[in-house]
Amino acid sequence: MDEPTIEDIREAVERIRPFVHRTPVLTCSTLNRICGTEMFFKCENFQKVGAFKIRGATNAVFALDDQEASRGVATHSSGNHAAALALAARWRGIRAYVVMPQNAPRVKIDAVTGYGAEIVFCEPTLEAREETLAEVVSTTGAAFVHPYNDPLVIAGQGTAALELCEEVTGLDVVMTPVGGGGLLSGTAITVSAVSPQAEVIAAEPERADDAYRSFRARRLIPATNSDTLADGLLTSLGDLTFSIIIRYVKDIYTVSEEGIVQAMRYIWERMKIIVEPSAAVPLGALLAKPKHLLGKRIGVILSGGNVDLADLPWASEIC
Amino acid sequence: MDEPTIEDIREAVERIRPFVHRTPVLTCSTLNRICGTEMFFKCENFQKVGAFKIRGATNAVFALDDQEASRGVATHSSGNHAAALALAARWRGIRAYVVMPQNAPRVKIDAVTGYGAEIVFCEPTLEAREETLAEVVSTTGAAFVHPYNDPLVIAGQGTAALELCEEVTGLDVVMTPVGGGGLLSGTAITVSAVSPQAEVIAAEPERADDAYRSFRARRLIPATNSDTLADGLLTSLGDLTFSIIIRYVKDIYTVSEEGIVQAMRYIWERMKIIVEPSAAVPLGALLAKPKHLLGKRIGVILSGGNVDLADLPWASEIC
Repeated sequence: MDEPTIEDIREAVERIRPFVHRTPVLTCSTLNRICGTEMFFKCENFQKVGAFKIRGATNAVFALDDQEASRGVATHSSGNHAAALALAARWRGIRAYVVMPQNAPRVKIDAVTGYGAEIVFCEPTLEAREETLAEVVSTTGAAFVHPYNDPLVIAGQGTAALELCEEVTGLDVVMTPVGGGGLLSGTAITVSAVSPQAEVIAAEPERADDAYRSFRARRLIPATNSDTLADGLLTSLGDLTFSIIIRYVKDIYTVSEEGIVQAMRYIWERMKIIVEPSAAVPLGALLAKPKHLLGKRIGVILSGGNVDLADLPWASEIC
Repeated sequence: MDEPTIEDIREAVERIRPFVHRTPVLTCSTLNRICGTEMFFKCENFQKVGAFKIRGATNAVFALDDQEASRGVATHSSGNHAAALALAARWRGIRAYVVMPQNAPRVKIDAVTGYGAEIVFCEPTLEAREETLAEVVSTTGAAFVHPYNDPLVIAGQGTAALELCEEVTGLDVVMTPVGGGGLLSGTAITVSAVSPQAEVIAAEPERADDAYRSFRARRLIPATNSDTLADGLLTSLGDLTFSIIIRYVKDIYTVSEEGIVQAMRYIWERMKIIVEPSAAVPLGALLAKPKHLLGKRIGVILSGGNVDLADLPWASEIC
């Protein structure tokens, strides 16, 4: 697969413009004071489906030619990508098939069916998931849209950083969380092209640190035993996202579970906005006040806002 | 006391401009669909101290002449007004005295002392509160700034609606919650002057419905046994706010506790922003789809966002 270029990202901007929000950039003087930095938060928690994932999914769905599209699209995510692909398919008027484990939480099943996708259940193992997806694709002819290891998806995710760099000039750093690396690699391509003075830095949960270890080792080391509250970041990098990250990303910081909860609570309490744990990971890294970043102008992509309000990390401590 | 005029409100705009945020107006297509209306949410939950109260408090504090100001300001609220008055006093570099019951929650005490105010504790009765305040005022010479029954406070609160009407033209209705009536009466004066075609409608918890009953009876009926989750709305109208409301407000709707929780949860889940229960009351009224409002362009002031994240109304049901 070819790495997407900034031209692919600019094409994605035009392709998805009629469908997605241009999300606001918020600032918070209290958090700036706490972290000793000047932060600009790109609020993808306000995005359609509540996460940046709609950008990549919409770009992939609308890049299909009519014949391809007529057979539908398929994926195996059970998170925000599945909901995003379902909605993008509905916008295009085509079918979406989502392979999900039988034990997926009700709320995720409802989100996907709510957007009109067809769910194909499988055993909760990686093998079953991939076999079931292969079966769906061969039976229906649907186009597989990978959650992150796909040039069109990466190009779509890169549009958030492009909006951020257009709106806030002179950034020293742009930060994103990293799971599979779609948002990070799209951001890295964008920033290196339009704000080459800015460093791209990722933040990852300590307890799902495959990107950190891969980055240090300069070779792809898949995650094993990932277990973090930031459930959007459990997945491992793909070969395509890894190759982009290794070239363009300056550093990857890791954050403890306590650090993630603290950052998430700060965003809720001080900014009065709802973000999911994964979105709080970059602020978690900044709360540790890395010397290198003090006094810097930092763009932070708040990746999403889908949380179960009846099961919050601090509520469970109390009850 | 004289009722404030639109000129007083315009003066307040200039007076408070260096200190308060011009808050954004957000929309939500899902909530529009659910309510059958077009809503424009003025986000005072993003305001300094997390509530519109900073507008009135700042206007009152900066309207004092230097000699008056040198003796400080005092109030007896334990909620957002106390925090707002404390911060406004700090901005002006003067003392703030806040009379609070001994049993006030730790979080409210911390908020007020965090802004540098001096707390004077009293017995948790209305009499003790008023006596203690009178004592503080006579000892210190501080200027009493009432939470709502004060022309300067009302004029300050009216600036939120002025910003809303400037930003969103052609509104059919403007809605606010009503407790003591400061926000509602300021809004009513503003709207009748700058958007006279628009109706002003208030929403109030069923379980603290003194404004509703006073409005119907055309005479002031103080609250007794108010008991609502929307703790910002427990207070009764004052004579000044009542006289303004009776003249300019079109109607007052009441909302059940369940309706308030449902509306609050919708705002959190669909808009991904944090509002306190009081702020959700107008949406609670709109969720009941009053016929008169279907299809209308409705400005809604989201009054504040200060909630205890460890004690949410839906979490307590679960645990």
